Amino acid sequence: MNKIEHIGIAVKDLDKAVSIYEQLLNTSCYKTEMVASEYVNTAFFKTGENKIELLQATAEESAIAKFVEKKGEGIHHIAFAVDDILAEMERLKANGFVLLNEVPKKGADNKMVCFVHPKNTNGVLIELCQEIKWT
Amino acid sequence: MNKIEHIGIAVKDLDKAVSIYEQLLNTSCYKTEMVASEYVNTAFFKTGENKIELLQATAEESAIAKFVEKKGEGIHHIAFAVDDILAEMERLKANGFVLLNEVPKKGADNKMVCFVHPKNTNGVLIELCQEIKWT
Repeated sequence: MNKIEHIGIAVKDLDKAVSIYEQLLNTSCYKTEMVASEYVNTAFFKTGENKIELLQATAEESAIAKFVEKKGEGIHHIAFAVDDILAEMERLKANGFVLLNEVPKKGADNKMVCFVHPKNTNGVLIELCQEIKWT
Repeated sequence: MNKIEHIGIAVKDLDKAVSIYEQLLNTSCYKTEMVASEYVNTAFFKTGENKIELLQATAEESAIAKFVEKKGEGIHHIAFAVDDILAEMERLKANGFVLLNEVPKKGADNKMVCFVHPKNTNGVLIELCQEIKWT
């Protein structure tokens, strides 16, 4: 795996959180994006080579809504950049990790993504993400 | 703030967690370090420009022991690299953030660090860290 592509933070009120993180990180939000399939609105910040992604649920069935209800606001996942998501998924499966997606799915910010179950990673939800190249 | 310097993950058994994260990240742990003042043993991994820090408590009074007892294993904090920790502390205080340290303290991995209270950052414990330059 390569660098941390982003850290996902679950929030209740995206507008308020964007204002807080603009002050905290001393940089402006550079993109907002709704991911309808995941029932989330997202907002992105650049911090050096990495990004912070704030996520607010848009429906009760959203994983983010369930997370916030159970644990409150906070860090939801760590996403690592990978060069070949299919190869990395195979490698992890062979090592006994449990993948939450059988095939990569479309995520925010022009990425194909796959999640790794936190039960085998000390409670940490891991996302693999590979940038989609449009030819 | 600059790049994510590291993400701190609270674990119960450092040896087991190191083995898991070596497989997950496909890289070897490059350093272990005891931080006696914080009652933790730590283990570090490089992931591109960033690091993952695993933390195991060595005593009940450790913040990591309290975190694991309350929330279970998982992501404990995000550390951002800063060029001038004192200036960044002043900037954050002026913006209403609450600092957990009045002056920077010595952290693991040759860093001066200061924590920001999660109550003003959507439940996320933030660490500022500046590398110590030895002249």
